[in-house]
Amino acid sequence: MDTAPEADSPFLSAEQKRTAREAKRAAVLRAAVQMFNRRGFHQTSLDDVAASLGISKPTIYHYLGNKDQVLLECVVIGLGQLIDLAEHCRTLPGSGADRLIAYLTRYAEINMDDFGRCVIRTAEEALAPESRARFRHLKRRIDADMRGFIAAGMADGSLAPGDVKLTAFALAGALNWPARWQNPEGEDAPDAIARKLVEFLGHGFTPRA
Amino acid sequence: MDTAPEADSPFLSAEQKRTAREAKRAAVLRAAVQMFNRRGFHQTSLDDVAASLGISKPTIYHYLGNKDQVLLECVVIGLGQLIDLAEHCRTLPGSGADRLIAYLTRYAEINMDDFGRCVIRTAEEALAPESRARFRHLKRRIDADMRGFIAAGMADGSLAPGDVKLTAFALAGALNWPARWQNPEGEDAPDAIARKLVEFLGHGFTPRA
Repeated sequence: MDTAPEADSPFLSAEQKRTAREAKRAAVLRAAVQMFNRRGFHQTSLDDVAASLGISKPTIYHYLGNKDQVLLECVVIGLGQLIDLAEHCRTLPGSGADRLIAYLTRYAEINMDDFGRCVIRTAEEALAPESRARFRHLKRRIDADMRGFIAAGMADGSLAPGDVKLTAFALAGALNWPARWQNPEGEDAPDAIARKLVEFLGHGFTPRA
Repeated sequence: MDTAPEADSPFLSAEQKRTAREAKRAAVLRAAVQMFNRRGFHQTSLDDVAASLGISKPTIYHYLGNKDQVLLECVVIGLGQLIDLAEHCRTLPGSGADRLIAYLTRYAEINMDDFGRCVIRTAEEALAPESRARFRHLKRRIDADMRGFIAAGMADGSLAPGDVKLTAFALAGALNWPARWQNPEGEDAPDAIARKLVEFLGHGFTPRA
């Protein structure tokens, strides 16, 4: 029972329509997130985003909703990448330190990507109250993931003992900050920056004997 | 030739007028910076700031100017504290590492204070182009100070060798981030947080043999 239209049919199948819709939604989100990152959320209007795609603002409303909803969708994508990353890293072999290093390195890279960068650059106050609650909820999950890797590594002795919460904040801060200083058009590749930052955080600034 | 009026004169001396003016300016800046930090710059109006002091918006214009100028003044104060700190720390005795640790610890504390917090929470895009240029210029000076302490410590061997620029970004990120997570009304004192963060950054997460 194959109900798909012929390949050369002028009518789109339900599947083709869904794919086209997803592609349009993704294009709007990509244009929006890049403009938010470059100009700042408050300095960007959906008219500008629409114009950059040659579409109208009502088309954006149709696919995504208002500006707050577009921003929420952008940060949800970035935070989703970090959540998927944590799930993946928990399955890796090796010690707690190995898993933490794998997590941190990719975490830093995601924060230099469009959507991860938007997560870091978005102040909670910029979102409407309901969106803010969802943003906070997801960020707490990222905090919990980060603390989980640290606690596991301290427990198996592969990490130096210490304050899990403070360590998580120090690592997150150092690896979130590139969203503010790293130039996406710059000469240093995000993966190299990520690797060097994590290496520094592993050893600190005190010389080893 | 003492031209100061009698102590019980109903007329203010030039010096008293200057002092009163400075006190009013400082009160407006303190109210504004706290509201910017709590609500976000874009969510704060000068009407709200004025109302919290029982004054009118034109009074704020009189003492400080428009909202952009008020924000610029707030970040200039915060950055000025960091610049003064660097000047002080360069005169301290001990090794390069000693001076870096003194600098970093106080740097972290300032970033949890009202004006330092505002520096970190302010995205460059929020400022008008001219103000933004001044903000960037001062931030570059802070970067240069941080790199100077690191380079000096690496040169005298009291710090582990490494990439000065990357190290500066990692340290700054870890010590700027409390402006986003530390709760001014929370239970952990800024000086204790600062000390623990710097200690972690000195040793990293890898256990020492």
